[in-house]
Amino acid sequence: SILDSPEGTRLGGEKRRVTIMMTDLRGFTAISERLPAEHVVGIINIYLEIMTEIILKYQGTIDEFIGDAILVIFGAPVLREDDARRAAACAIEMQLAMETVNARNREAGYPDVAQGIGINTGDLVVGNIGSEKRSKYGVVGRNVNLTSRIESYTVGGQILISESTLAACGDALRIDDQFEVMPKGLKHPITIYELGGIGGSATLCLPEKHTAELKSLAVPLPVR
Amino acid sequence: SILDSPEGTRLGGEKRRVTIMMTDLRGFTAISERLPAEHVVGIINIYLEIMTEIILKYQGTIDEFIGDAILVIFGAPVLREDDARRAAACAIEMQLAMETVNARNREAGYPDVAQGIGINTGDLVVGNIGSEKRSKYGVVGRNVNLTSRIESYTVGGQILISESTLAACGDALRIDDQFEVMPKGLKHPITIYELGGIGGSATLCLPEKHTAELKSLAVPLPVR
Repeated sequence: SILDSPEGTRLGGEKRRVTIMMTDLRGFTAISERLPAEHVVGIINIYLEIMTEIILKYQGTIDEFIGDAILVIFGAPVLREDDARRAAACAIEMQLAMETVNARNREAGYPDVAQGIGINTGDLVVGNIGSEKRSKYGVVGRNVNLTSRIESYTVGGQILISESTLAACGDALRIDDQFEVMPKGLKHPITIYELGGIGGSATLCLPEKHTAELKSLAVPLPVR
Repeated sequence: SILDSPEGTRLGGEKRRVTIMMTDLRGFTAISERLPAEHVVGIINIYLEIMTEIILKYQGTIDEFIGDAILVIFGAPVLREDDARRAAACAIEMQLAMETVNARNREAGYPDVAQGIGINTGDLVVGNIGSEKRSKYGVVGRNVNLTSRIESYTVGGQILISESTLAACGDALRIDDQFEVMPKGLKHPITIYELGGIGGSATLCLPEKHTAELKSLAVPLPVR
């Protein structure tokens, strides 16, 4: 790993194919304006605490907490063959854990929140960035920006992944939907995919959409 | 300060009126795609090293390096009466220091870069955010997003400030231009101001625009 090797640190930068995850609490900035400051920080900390556990379990590198957003890298400092799949499985477990987050929120008298997750796979530059006074392991490149754009298309509860992540994940993904989008800074539209589940050694699924629809239809309509 | 007081830490959050600065190297993500990874990190580190010195001199709190961007807070953890003015003076000195940054870049065989700076003053929530495993002094609120939007309107070399920062700075600012813009997430357009200089105890100025124009006119045109 770059962090472990003095050569890597001296070299100062490396181009890597990694999988990038961006998350945030959808609409939270607007919600936060109406809440006491202690509640704002309380909600963020419940969210970050539970998500950090899951991200570390899947060997993701937390690059940054930015307000209520998390930037995670799978594949740096340590590159692994299943980076994209671990990111996908991690995202599903993170969405499932929102039930725990909101149970904790309700306990504390806070409102419910919903998470969006965007995932993208591609080259970027990784390295130790900063000054002598303050440095961090950082990432640079258009694929970071693209991940952030993909995440911005999510609604609460959704995981959206790029074509490159879909390809890198290989078999046994459950894709629930797909969209053409035109992110700022791109010349052509791209297709993004809504991830619903992953099979294989770690089977993880979000509730299926049509099941949810059937369930809601099973409730008798009130007769007027 | 929140960081120093156990009460502040336990409380976990506070609403504060602060001045927020966002900077980045304009167009650098696109440039970085065509450069060797070592150069990308090299350019960022020259930039961050020189800017960190100046920010600390003006008692700004560096909240984050995000790739080639810097998020700085004036007014937290420690609130001071002249937060907005120090931010403005700091920004001018940072733009003036780009000459040094690019001299270092040329020495290393790197291309020249240009910085944009956005400044905004307003309420936001500050506090220690994160988990037991990893926490930082963070900021949340629409004023953070707004600062980032204001910065996105800059071209290289420019400092754009919001109306609230202009008001908080008081007298003796040199404003070179103003624009109406409609940032995403706002219902009404806002006016932003291009900062060219600050007077008073610390007089700092960017080169005046009309001087630059006169100078360029003073060069004789080639006769064809």
